[in-house]
Amino acid sequence: MNLTRRNFNRLAITSAATALIPRASAQSSERRLRYAIVGLGRISVNCFMPAIRASSTSEITALVSGSPEKARRLASQYGVPESSIYSYEQFDRIRENAEIDAVYIGLPNGMHAEYTIRAAHAGKHVLCEKPMATTEEEARAMIVACRHARRKLMIGYRCQLEATTLHVKQLIQSGQLGKIHSIESANGFNTPAGEWRLNRKLAGGGPLLDVGIYLLNACRFLLGEEPARVSAFSSVIDRDGRFDQVEETIAWTMKFPTGTIATCSTSYGADMEGFYRIHGSKGVITVQPAFSYLGIRMVGQIGEEPIDDPDKASFPDEFIRETDHFSRCVLEDRQPGPSGEEGLKDMEWIAQIYKSAAAQS
Amino acid sequence: MNLTRRNFNRLAITSAATALIPRASAQSSERRLRYAIVGLGRISVNCFMPAIRASSTSEITALVSGSPEKARRLASQYGVPESSIYSYEQFDRIRENAEIDAVYIGLPNGMHAEYTIRAAHAGKHVLCEKPMATTEEEARAMIVACRHARRKLMIGYRCQLEATTLHVKQLIQSGQLGKIHSIESANGFNTPAGEWRLNRKLAGGGPLLDVGIYLLNACRFLLGEEPARVSAFSSVIDRDGRFDQVEETIAWTMKFPTGTIATCSTSYGADMEGFYRIHGSKGVITVQPAFSYLGIRMVGQIGEEPIDDPDKASFPDEFIRETDHFSRCVLEDRQPGPSGEEGLKDMEWIAQIYKSAAAQS
Repeated sequence: MNLTRRNFNRLAITSAATALIPRASAQSSERRLRYAIVGLGRISVNCFMPAIRASSTSEITALVSGSPEKARRLASQYGVPESSIYSYEQFDRIRENAEIDAVYIGLPNGMHAEYTIRAAHAGKHVLCEKPMATTEEEARAMIVACRHARRKLMIGYRCQLEATTLHVKQLIQSGQLGKIHSIESANGFNTPAGEWRLNRKLAGGGPLLDVGIYLLNACRFLLGEEPARVSAFSSVIDRDGRFDQVEETIAWTMKFPTGTIATCSTSYGADMEGFYRIHGSKGVITVQPAFSYLGIRMVGQIGEEPIDDPDKASFPDEFIRETDHFSRCVLEDRQPGPSGEEGLKDMEWIAQIYKSAAAQS
Repeated sequence: MNLTRRNFNRLAITSAATALIPRASAQSSERRLRYAIVGLGRISVNCFMPAIRASSTSEITALVSGSPEKARRLASQYGVPESSIYSYEQFDRIRENAEIDAVYIGLPNGMHAEYTIRAAHAGKHVLCEKPMATTEEEARAMIVACRHARRKLMIGYRCQLEATTLHVKQLIQSGQLGKIHSIESANGFNTPAGEWRLNRKLAGGGPLLDVGIYLLNACRFLLGEEPARVSAFSSVIDRDGRFDQVEETIAWTMKFPTGTIATCSTSYGADMEGFYRIHGSKGVITVQPAFSYLGIRMVGQIGEEPIDDPDKASFPDEFIRETDHFSRCVLEDRQPGPSGEEGLKDMEWIAQIYKSAAAQS
């Protein structure tokens, strides 16, 4: 379990380590997309901001935080003027800041919709972390707000831009794995008490919305089709107060129109290094870790041929790729993907999964 | 995929190889249980008969086959007199053969009930391969027949006697893995056209009954509880005639009373090396291959402690253990396990799984 997202966060990325990530060459004369970072939690500070620093397409020109001290410290680190630090109350004033082209939303899930919509109203493009929102209604409102403001909206499904994931998709779509019969998958972690993830208002749901969504999105993305049917069970085993508001463990099965059956398990009660295994008529591949920030690895066999494809990327390449893609799309006026509509699809399926789990409880 | 049950059958066990398996010492003075082998297919010829040869508790004294030539060849190899070779039509005459204590039923699934019941009527104990039968009704009739005849009945769930499986069960039941949140599992193989497995009358069902039953039985056995709920999807992808009578792929989810959620996938359309992964609050273990005839291996991590526990057995140790257990129980008048009632439980759950798959199709 050495390469899980959380262990990686805890162990590998210290301020000292992030300081080692090289800045992109200052000599690039191309225009960069200028971001306001909204929310200075782990994913912003440890991943996205270092990625922007290393990117040649992007820069950080503003920070939005509820913690003035943390914001000032990071502003100084990233060369952001004090006048471009905003509290959440002041957020709408980003409209008047011409040095901001876009926002990166790294907030708790329950705040994604509000700040995406406010950003669009302020005339800024939006790169919003997954899950897009906590309900379908919120997701639709976000799409509408960005469309009305003629601003781009992208959802931070890193994996859809990640090399191993794209290799897997190519193996499936080219027919090299044969007909895909089943996918087994899991992703989760043992969540400590007190996290915003356990607060329904902030999180919007339990592990399904936060880490199970990786499995849902991977199955849909890799197979290139939408489920025909879903069925789910959820459960709470630990009666220690952590799970008074959200589910602890949920597993669901999706039957796809071509016949593939995918099973997915997610939990806040057990460390589950993200993995998926794909059984095709011509071969089998396992990706594990499948969703981490580095070290994604595919092993398996197609016919008699063994496969071992460890990702060669280093940290924070995945986030640089994501940043670059969004920035280039905005600068070149192209639609970035994964789109808001893609995020909405997951929200719709998550609603169906919760509905099935409730009906079968 | 080098150690799957089928590849192993195909590649490793030739007549030459089985001839190398040592005979048990002829000096043992203890009484041996005397078997009639019913059905001379792969599992009998490649596995069970060599195990009896190597065992010190058992011997083969009769053969029942539809192929006189094959029976004569094996009779000569195992020192069985020609007078103790029976066709299926002559089967009931085993009653008059005092050199037979028990039968081993290695027939296609659809014949298990009939020959178990006829064996009981003939006054013989029965060790019957899994799946016990093709329906709950058959399974109940088998239990009743053996009970009325005061004869022992055991179902050939090798894994319940296998060292790694028992180690996994101990890790769960002792609490070392913590609370068990989820199990993900799969088992299957790409079945060639023409196999009896694809014939509903002989097989009784598709991969669920034949290889999926390993997953069902493992979850029930390891957790030590019965599911509270099941939900299933089945599908046919290959419209090549193989799956006109039985399902091709089926996946089901079981929610257990303590809260564990287990997902299981099985298929006749893809080679799936049998595996299960158990996610507990204190650790994770993966067993793969999980159901093969040798090389069962557990890897994982409990707390910070990595686990790598490859089974040290050699072939056909698993079958010797099974034979010895049944033989000793009969010779000492103890009830052997896994019992008929255990086999019946699986048949009941299989009926529920098929019912759910039909309702959700």
